[in-house]
Amino acid sequence: MDKPMKGLESLFPIWQALNDAQRAKLLIDATPRSVEKDTVLMNGSADCVGLFLIESGQLRTYIVSDEGKEITLYRLFERDICLFSASCLIASLQFDIWVEAEKQSRFWVLPVSTYENLMESSPVVANYTSELMASRFSEVMWLMEQILFKRFDSRLASFLLDESAVEGALALSLTHERIANHLGTAREVVTRMLKYFQEEGMVKLARGKVCLINEQKLNKLIT
Amino acid sequence: MDKPMKGLESLFPIWQALNDAQRAKLLIDATPRSVEKDTVLMNGSADCVGLFLIESGQLRTYIVSDEGKEITLYRLFERDICLFSASCLIASLQFDIWVEAEKQSRFWVLPVSTYENLMESSPVVANYTSELMASRFSEVMWLMEQILFKRFDSRLASFLLDESAVEGALALSLTHERIANHLGTAREVVTRMLKYFQEEGMVKLARGKVCLINEQKLNKLIT
Repeated sequence: MDKPMKGLESLFPIWQALNDAQRAKLLIDATPRSVEKDTVLMNGSADCVGLFLIESGQLRTYIVSDEGKEITLYRLFERDICLFSASCLIASLQFDIWVEAEKQSRFWVLPVSTYENLMESSPVVANYTSELMASRFSEVMWLMEQILFKRFDSRLASFLLDESAVEGALALSLTHERIANHLGTAREVVTRMLKYFQEEGMVKLARGKVCLINEQKLNKLIT
Repeated sequence: MDKPMKGLESLFPIWQALNDAQRAKLLIDATPRSVEKDTVLMNGSADCVGLFLIESGQLRTYIVSDEGKEITLYRLFERDICLFSASCLIASLQFDIWVEAEKQSRFWVLPVSTYENLMESSPVVANYTSELMASRFSEVMWLMEQILFKRFDSRLASFLLDESAVEGALALSLTHERIANHLGTAREVVTRMLKYFQEEGMVKLARGKVCLINEQKLNKLIT
């Protein structure tokens, strides 16, 4: 490990709301961890290893079908907290989730029992945890609606591949606004899905440009 | 309104954990409401009318596509709390949801500000709210996995319709165990999906029996 990890003081989002005893306990109990790219940190079957507070790198959260098909739910970046690696914390969280490091990553592991005590003694921590879960829930609902209803992933992929064929180029000069007009939707919807495509390694975004970098993967979205 | 509604004391799941002041405040602020079957209580666009604590009846929670296609997420019964009718309570809950009464229903409406104060002052209420959200989240994840991956809804519908054709009857003598063996899955998975079918009005379940009551709807599940 090269440079020392940033401290909890600067990473933990609600550090200011903790009292001295709570801070001291966290500082003692949290342990740093560093993992290589592609390390699987949680493999669905309800490990409960603790909360990950990310200092650097990138984690991917996904579900896996019996046949091994994966769907990415969301990604976690610096200062994010991975709650589902400690799903035993919340008894009603009853589903299997996978977490892997997509880049070399460093994070603090906060033990379940320590965090549980915090939640039980501090409404701020408890409500913060609710907010964390709600934002993951919202990501998942968004994804589900896009996939189930709108097939907007499919429509956007299809549009991009068509444009690329017409232009005879992989780098397309297209604003999100223009794509939205073409597809009869809002610019925000296009931006969000393009960002998802980029995270999935299908496109690369630049100002006023969309570059297709994995046509095969885009093609798979079209049904 | 006929007989008086059951009190919060017997309906609110964590009444015992509240102190006298909190109880008194809830008793003052909660208002009873009675709605007819098919009343839409929340129509997606982020009303924030308060939490519903159900005394009797049945609420259905669902999402709706631009084209009006609906998917039922889960149902709420007696003593359940509908959190999403107060989604402004949790800032990160950013998705639209519909709620309707599937039967004539009676419930207490707990104002957002009252509940918010409870959450902020009581870790028990805050953590209980997390558990509530987690269990809805789990329901939604289950549904998403079934639909996206396994198409188990489709496979089960197809199996039931085939059996019915073979038997020349709508009432099938089939244990969940036997269906699970046929479809190569676990009994629990069959039971849960059959329950979902029953709630959707497609089958009626009795001991060792599955009766098809809406073949057209079952047929629609087969792709």
